[in-house]
Amino acid sequence: MNKVIIGVDLGGTNIKTAIVGEDKKIIAKSSQPTGEDTGPEAVMNLMAQCISDLIRDNGLEMSQVLAAGFGAPGPMNWQTGIVFSPPNLKGWKDVPLAEEMQKRLGIPCYVDNDANVACYGEYWLGAGQGADSIVVFTLGTGVGGGIVVFGKLLRGIDGTAAELGHLTVQRDGRLCGCGARGCLEAYASVTGMIRTAEEGWDKAETKLKQMCKGDPKALRGKLIYDAAVEGDAYALHVFHETAVWLGLGAASMINALNPERLIFCGGMSNAGDLLFSTVRETVMANAFEVPAKRCQILPAGLGNDSGVIGCAGCALDRYLRKDG
Amino acid sequence: MNKVIIGVDLGGTNIKTAIVGEDKKIIAKSSQPTGEDTGPEAVMNLMAQCISDLIRDNGLEMSQVLAAGFGAPGPMNWQTGIVFSPPNLKGWKDVPLAEEMQKRLGIPCYVDNDANVACYGEYWLGAGQGADSIVVFTLGTGVGGGIVVFGKLLRGIDGTAAELGHLTVQRDGRLCGCGARGCLEAYASVTGMIRTAEEGWDKAETKLKQMCKGDPKALRGKLIYDAAVEGDAYALHVFHETAVWLGLGAASMINALNPERLIFCGGMSNAGDLLFSTVRETVMANAFEVPAKRCQILPAGLGNDSGVIGCAGCALDRYLRKDG
Repeated sequence: MNKVIIGVDLGGTNIKTAIVGEDKKIIAKSSQPTGEDTGPEAVMNLMAQCISDLIRDNGLEMSQVLAAGFGAPGPMNWQTGIVFSPPNLKGWKDVPLAEEMQKRLGIPCYVDNDANVACYGEYWLGAGQGADSIVVFTLGTGVGGGIVVFGKLLRGIDGTAAELGHLTVQRDGRLCGCGARGCLEAYASVTGMIRTAEEGWDKAETKLKQMCKGDPKALRGKLIYDAAVEGDAYALHVFHETAVWLGLGAASMINALNPERLIFCGGMSNAGDLLFSTVRETVMANAFEVPAKRCQILPAGLGNDSGVIGCAGCALDRYLRKDG
Repeated sequence: MNKVIIGVDLGGTNIKTAIVGEDKKIIAKSSQPTGEDTGPEAVMNLMAQCISDLIRDNGLEMSQVLAAGFGAPGPMNWQTGIVFSPPNLKGWKDVPLAEEMQKRLGIPCYVDNDANVACYGEYWLGAGQGADSIVVFTLGTGVGGGIVVFGKLLRGIDGTAAELGHLTVQRDGRLCGCGARGCLEAYASVTGMIRTAEEGWDKAETKLKQMCKGDPKALRGKLIYDAAVEGDAYALHVFHETAVWLGLGAASMINALNPERLIFCGGMSNAGDLLFSTVRETVMANAFEVPAKRCQILPAGLGNDSGVIGCAGCALDRYLRKDG
């Protein structure tokens, strides 16, 4: 009987579940609203339900499941599988997620940071497949990161590595949510992009004003993208600025790690040339020639599934290595 | 008969040679002026001579030498051992250093970047000994770097990794020698520190003016250090600024890699609290709490010998791994 791996990407909005075969083929996947207000017990019960439904609906049995991997928002201890206090999951405080899910499912369960699993997903089956080393930036409300070197996720001694949204790109720059100033995230996240749009708002001539009915509080990443695609000069300027900041962060990581590939995940990574051409130019202007030319800069190969697939990949890797 | 390893640190000014036992004890070391104007042939002959002298003077024989490691200024290909065109070594162009030294010595010879060997030296026998992971900044005319993770030097896919002087810390900042703007090196190297001192020179009240006979071109790192130690407010300000920039670079690497230790090598690292207290404060203010508290920030444990000892360590590691 063929063995399979389960991946579960636990987000503030949705729980995504996937079954992956040992041959690395995706067998099935599903998505459910998290109902994050219901607290950890209900959410963990729901995840167990999602898994058993998906297993049954695909003619499989739990005895075929080698392990399950869970991607959750940090901070957390990936080795003990305890999730400390994710801002997007109400009522979660020091939840022993790995242990609780193992109780419910009766199989080895592993927990990892959501940006790290996205990175691993891309390395395992996405745009990073077969690469010597990759750096991943996840672009959303914040900017997360993941690093694979020597064929392994670089987690760091406390499991906090790859916080690539918190590279300092401007001394005494914008205040970041982390409390520091001038972090990449304060400029290059969707939130940072909206701040850039707001900063020049009063003087700007842009169709965004009409789209927002004059209220900059109605600005969203998607609106700015739509306006840019329609050729709105101000929206293009905002996108360009965002991409320059991202390019500076990318150049720093290319000089620091000389990776084979650098991959952008998350909604913004669908912006195509609007983002990538400026990022590539900025990297060429700011990183050394050899590593800049070497490093392929790519959008996620797994679209929105980097995370859930990475959960399965990480779980399989940890199951096989027995390293926690 | 006990086996030994040779390390040779080839700098623009001096050739340093060391013999290290398999028990990791330093048996002997020497230093000779490079005579860098004499070209690669003469310098390579001199290195061979330094090695055989040191071997003979310590009652050893070449048959006891397992391998020799050479640290040289980049750019280079560490795998083929070819040194491309180091700015500090006149007449050197695509010199097959490993092959040429192997011909002269009849033993396996390995070549590595000078900042990487300093990092490896600290990891092997210095302030990084026994650590899970380390990040090294070498502070001199420029800022170099080295990274050890998973027990290995992180060289990157082309061997150009750890160019930590070229993290962007200020968008559109100072022009750096590499052609980009706002690199850490433009602020935190000795050269960068002197630029900081020059920028405020006209308005400054400082005993540096007397020490330099009014000419800012006479500024040197040592002078600024001496003035700071004597309590000169302007020199203290310049040191503080330099340390803040260095702290921002350090914070970025701590957020990116969550290393166990971060080590400063090179002359400036002897500045003690003048440098380290501000670096530590800046790290605490800019990096996440868990990795910032975890990471020990230390001066080189091997003083000026990180490089030459690292050459021997790298050579032994590569000899034992047979990885190039």
